[in-house]
Amino acid sequence: MGCMSETTTWANPLRDPRDLRLPRIAGPCSLVIFGVTGDLAQKKLLPAVYDLANRGLLPPSFGLIGFARRDWAADHFVDVVKEAIQAHCRTPFRESTWNNLLKGIRFVQGTFDDPAAFERLSQTVQELDRDRGTRGNHAFYMSVPPSAFPVVAKQLAASGLSRSSEGAWRRVIIEKPFGHDLKSAQELDRTVSEVFDPSSVFRIDHYLGKETVQNLLALRFANSMYEPIWNSNYVDHVQITMAEDIGIESRAGYFDGIGAARDVIQNHLLQLMALTAMEEPVSFAAEDLTAEKIKVLSAIRLPHDLSKHTARGQYAQGWQGSREVNGYLDEKGVDRGSTTETYAAIRLDVDTRRWAGVPFYLRTGKRLGKRVTEIAVVFKRAPHLPFESTAVQELGNNAIVIRVQPDEGVTMRFGAKVPGATAMEVRDVSMDFSYGRSFTESSPEAYERLILDVLLGDPPLFPTTKEVDLSWRILDPIEEFWSTLGQPQPYRAGTWGPAEADQMLALDGRHWRMP
Amino acid sequence: MGCMSETTTWANPLRDPRDLRLPRIAGPCSLVIFGVTGDLAQKKLLPAVYDLANRGLLPPSFGLIGFARRDWAADHFVDVVKEAIQAHCRTPFRESTWNNLLKGIRFVQGTFDDPAAFERLSQTVQELDRDRGTRGNHAFYMSVPPSAFPVVAKQLAASGLSRSSEGAWRRVIIEKPFGHDLKSAQELDRTVSEVFDPSSVFRIDHYLGKETVQNLLALRFANSMYEPIWNSNYVDHVQITMAEDIGIESRAGYFDGIGAARDVIQNHLLQLMALTAMEEPVSFAAEDLTAEKIKVLSAIRLPHDLSKHTARGQYAQGWQGSREVNGYLDEKGVDRGSTTETYAAIRLDVDTRRWAGVPFYLRTGKRLGKRVTEIAVVFKRAPHLPFESTAVQELGNNAIVIRVQPDEGVTMRFGAKVPGATAMEVRDVSMDFSYGRSFTESSPEAYERLILDVLLGDPPLFPTTKEVDLSWRILDPIEEFWSTLGQPQPYRAGTWGPAEADQMLALDGRHWRMP
Repeated sequence: MGCMSETTTWANPLRDPRDLRLPRIAGPCSLVIFGVTGDLAQKKLLPAVYDLANRGLLPPSFGLIGFARRDWAADHFVDVVKEAIQAHCRTPFRESTWNNLLKGIRFVQGTFDDPAAFERLSQTVQELDRDRGTRGNHAFYMSVPPSAFPVVAKQLAASGLSRSSEGAWRRVIIEKPFGHDLKSAQELDRTVSEVFDPSSVFRIDHYLGKETVQNLLALRFANSMYEPIWNSNYVDHVQITMAEDIGIESRAGYFDGIGAARDVIQNHLLQLMALTAMEEPVSFAAEDLTAEKIKVLSAIRLPHDLSKHTARGQYAQGWQGSREVNGYLDEKGVDRGSTTETYAAIRLDVDTRRWAGVPFYLRTGKRLGKRVTEIAVVFKRAPHLPFESTAVQELGNNAIVIRVQPDEGVTMRFGAKVPGATAMEVRDVSMDFSYGRSFTESSPEAYERLILDVLLGDPPLFPTTKEVDLSWRILDPIEEFWSTLGQPQPYRAGTWGPAEADQMLALDGRHWRMP
Repeated sequence: MGCMSETTTWANPLRDPRDLRLPRIAGPCSLVIFGVTGDLAQKKLLPAVYDLANRGLLPPSFGLIGFARRDWAADHFVDVVKEAIQAHCRTPFRESTWNNLLKGIRFVQGTFDDPAAFERLSQTVQELDRDRGTRGNHAFYMSVPPSAFPVVAKQLAASGLSRSSEGAWRRVIIEKPFGHDLKSAQELDRTVSEVFDPSSVFRIDHYLGKETVQNLLALRFANSMYEPIWNSNYVDHVQITMAEDIGIESRAGYFDGIGAARDVIQNHLLQLMALTAMEEPVSFAAEDLTAEKIKVLSAIRLPHDLSKHTARGQYAQGWQGSREVNGYLDEKGVDRGSTTETYAAIRLDVDTRRWAGVPFYLRTGKRLGKRVTEIAVVFKRAPHLPFESTAVQELGNNAIVIRVQPDEGVTMRFGAKVPGATAMEVRDVSMDFSYGRSFTESSPEAYERLILDVLLGDPPLFPTTKEVDLSWRILDPIEEFWSTLGQPQPYRAGTWGPAEADQMLALDGRHWRMP
């Protein structure tokens, strides 16, 4: 599959076009990880740093500083880092890479509320600048609970760590969630922006890697075939789905009280929707993209009747594959009377010329039939079919389905004649493109790409403050409405959600795709 | 591949819609084959008759009459038929089917210019009507050289065989070529129409089966995705190719002096072009289809400068796979000074609102790189690409390629982002649909379908007289121009034709696809 002889390089608008073919290698700098003993750091961040080093994309002088409460000796920390890398790195483990990385590894013990600990961190950073040549360039990775953001930010400010000298930089990386409603999001933003310049804040959402965003943009805008039919003249509706087959696992502490809509729709699905619905940006510079996404988010209209065009569900006991699994209310750490939804579906409209009258249906859920994230653009039926109207009803609508994960790619569904039928009979068939099967190149691990982008100062394609605010403005009224209702409708684990969600689409004369 | 649960039945407009799901079984009748000892009859027609019988689609009383010059006994003819069937049938050979078919098999010995032979044929036909119950329904298959058409037609008229009694039918099947220029085509038509009513004449072109026509129509008109971009706003040009890897084989007697353009472009490629370019028909009835095809053929404009926008070639010695093969002039039966082209390419324009400014490039040739027939609709570049213009040149145009043979199906070519590239890089990829891999149903053998259609009186989707005339009107001026030139440009066997053909497209800033 795929004739892949022709190649085009898209401009990275922030870099000199003459550099496009040069490897993107970070300059002198260090990465400081808060919460370095946590799961994310051990399984993803440290191995990603090693893989970057192994690929030759980090500077020889690179510094890596772990900050944590545990009272570890520097040697012990080094052992922990090495174990994490050996267990999870994707490139081969090479002693030479490790030995070079080792020279820049430091450990700072302390709690987030201890100014002395940040004083020690400041000295360590200066020591790296002096002895290793990191030249005052330092990135701070907040691998900590959202509640810890404000105190860490304040300590960074108080200790002077957030300020760089002339010609150097300080950057901060924050993982989602960005608040749990508009108010908390704005508070978080205020806290961070008091300490860091907005251009130094890298908000990330690991669900929505830069790869996904760029794949979507390339599909839509590098081709001439899709844009002409990408509008309300031809599109009947759009379905954006993020389904998980797993339950909440060990995340009850975070998830219960938050729910599926805040966890997934507010950030991931609304971003996918914005990328699907937006107009062509002037360029792929982050600011141009952001401008277009903001236009879409600003034009989104909530359903008139939230009781009809939103749906909530909570998984009940059922099956995941051949294993019987608990209902949500029986999960460890979940309140027996919890009204938190594990499934959420909403209809949104976009008040623009392009999308007038085209509903976007967003849904997400846990313990559904299958793990899949996809955008399905479903087209109207052909306006006239030169065959018997009585026999038309069974032919499906044409659809372009962009698979975000797993097996990232594109599927097109259309009608084709059944060979040799005595009458002329048409059935739905599909054609398929898969990144994995079409390219020998593999996608970089999301965190590798992210860390390198931060160190290079490449702006991420993730939501800006404005987008986060707009997203909460969309979700808050729905959450408020839901809070007046009782228990979400139960659905059996392993199925495709509550009956309410099916009724919501049936009301519009449509049905959910079975991904 | 393919979700194939949904099915639509298209109306066959000449039959009662209530009959759509009934098997199409021929009523009482016989098939008379002129030239029954020839290759076509032995390898295709007789096995197709058997396969139809085996599938239960022929009436129990079916009659099969062979007419030939050889002085065979009836028994010997039966043996010949049985051998042909056993060697080439596609369904299992069953004695019960054969024994039943056998009862209706007759042989008439004679030459085409012998009235007594046609008298014997007439008696045989009457005998079948009386003893087997064929009820006066008889089809005549002209598996004879074009030069023999007139005399056979006249004999059928003279012996009264062409006329049916009230409530019965007589039909005639003519294989292409339908003449070798406008004048000869009109003469042929006059001869046939003096004897048979136009609705009783079944012109066939085995290259262009009813399956192909219906597949093309279903793709274009059962879907909503293709039509919006199927016009000069989005299409840059169309390439229609029929390439053969073989040489002329044993066809020198027919081919030399005729050439590739008359042999393939006039009928096959112009029909494919008409089906690609036509407007949506009111229905799929043969007459509605014909009306649309005629509109396209009438709107075709020849190139202003035939020396620039047509190309001829003649294959020279070269390679077919690992086998060294002769040049055309060294083929058995070919005149050493022959100027017959084995490769022909022409540019045509269609003077309609839909296609203004969109060239259609047609090409055909023998001893080319590969056996393939395809229609490639090549789209314009995206009107604006939000990336560096210096890097755009290598990305190909989007294309929808309809493969007619082999491996009938559809391929779409478009650009996708290369995973993980440090810069944003886009390459051409493709997605694919194949009838063979998507359906469990297999296409019926072209002759099976054709013979059944004739016996049922289902009008074929093949060219009418008017279309044949229009096609010759297009080709005649080109042939006339070529006749003033000398030797066609040689091309090495196994390559993609003469340099002249590449220059012809280069002149328009385009290039031929490599299928």
